[in-house]
Amino acid sequence: MIITISREFGSGGRELGKRLSDALHLPCYDNEIIEMISKEHGLDAGYVARVSENSLRAAYPLTIGRRFSIPYKVMEQSIMVAVTQQKIVQKLAQQGDCVIIGCCADTVLAHLHPLRIFVYADRPSKLKRCQERAAEQEKFTVAEMERRMRQIDKNRAKKHELTASIPWGAKEGYDLCINTSGREIKALVPALAEYIKSWFSSEYNAME
Amino acid sequence: MIITISREFGSGGRELGKRLSDALHLPCYDNEIIEMISKEHGLDAGYVARVSENSLRAAYPLTIGRRFSIPYKVMEQSIMVAVTQQKIVQKLAQQGDCVIIGCCADTVLAHLHPLRIFVYADRPSKLKRCQERAAEQEKFTVAEMERRMRQIDKNRAKKHELTASIPWGAKEGYDLCINTSGREIKALVPALAEYIKSWFSSEYNAME
Repeated sequence: MIITISREFGSGGRELGKRLSDALHLPCYDNEIIEMISKEHGLDAGYVARVSENSLRAAYPLTIGRRFSIPYKVMEQSIMVAVTQQKIVQKLAQQGDCVIIGCCADTVLAHLHPLRIFVYADRPSKLKRCQERAAEQEKFTVAEMERRMRQIDKNRAKKHELTASIPWGAKEGYDLCINTSGREIKALVPALAEYIKSWFSSEYNAME
Repeated sequence: MIITISREFGSGGRELGKRLSDALHLPCYDNEIIEMISKEHGLDAGYVARVSENSLRAAYPLTIGRRFSIPYKVMEQSIMVAVTQQKIVQKLAQQGDCVIIGCCADTVLAHLHPLRIFVYADRPSKLKRCQERAAEQEKFTVAEMERRMRQIDKNRAKKHELTASIPWGAKEGYDLCINTSGREIKALVPALAEYIKSWFSSEYNAME
């Protein structure tokens, strides 16, 4: 029972994944993966998170400016982080049933036939969620927040492209797509956990 | 509690809708709508079904040939059927909670904020389902069946375009997209019915 959660930024996908793992009594891997990578390579966890979540350019310190090409070392580290991430995802999945958030786990673990969930929402709902979630000191304007949302999703789509033939977010690549617009995620989780259980025991061919 | 089911041909969407309506003890409208239209206009139910489900061209008898333009009368009837269908869908929804399959109910009833479900599946699963469902006398070859599947979905998408700004099948236009590939629908329904109940009682704004 391996469940992968892909999600639009601000859709509440992480919350949904965490709550699902609680309801199903399964381990949930998210930031844990970042920490494992940073330990393995002796890199700062914040740096690994940026490399992992963002594009190469975003990971590269702004202060140095973007007139220069990305140095070989940064490029190398970015690839290294991606490869290590895949290895860790594989290892975690082999340890047993779990919920994995992000990390292209839907495609990296395709051979294990996970239940692939995609969580999305409309713009107003995502904005609202982001603004509620943001710490006081990092309040963004609506325009800044929207730019950030777009950029992060664009990066996720790009990263996904490296491991998949179906585009990121196209429903054909997932088993269940959940629109969280205007909904309280907590309230949806118990029934969703039941759906997941029945999904894993409802293989059609097994019925013949 | 109005639930609309949109679906790819062969995905089992109709079965899912019927079973959901049973589980939720709600009326389910599908062919009933066709019968109501045919009664209202004194037209043959089979003819109405073709006009309703297929494109204008498909509704127009093949035997007359396609070299001629579609006569005014056929065009008129097709529009009349579409308009009557919308009116009936509105009327049924006003009567109370229900499940409506097809008929662009997701967009026609948008003002009532229905739970909009889209049911889809991969090609092999849809083919398998179609072939199992087909009566002995109407066995198609795989190529014929695939052509038919594509044509019906194309017609559904086209008809949907008339009432919607979001394309047919794009996840943004639905609240839940369910991939039935390789799954037994019957087994998914009880948990899905619970999900629907919690969806209707999980409005986010109500929590504040």
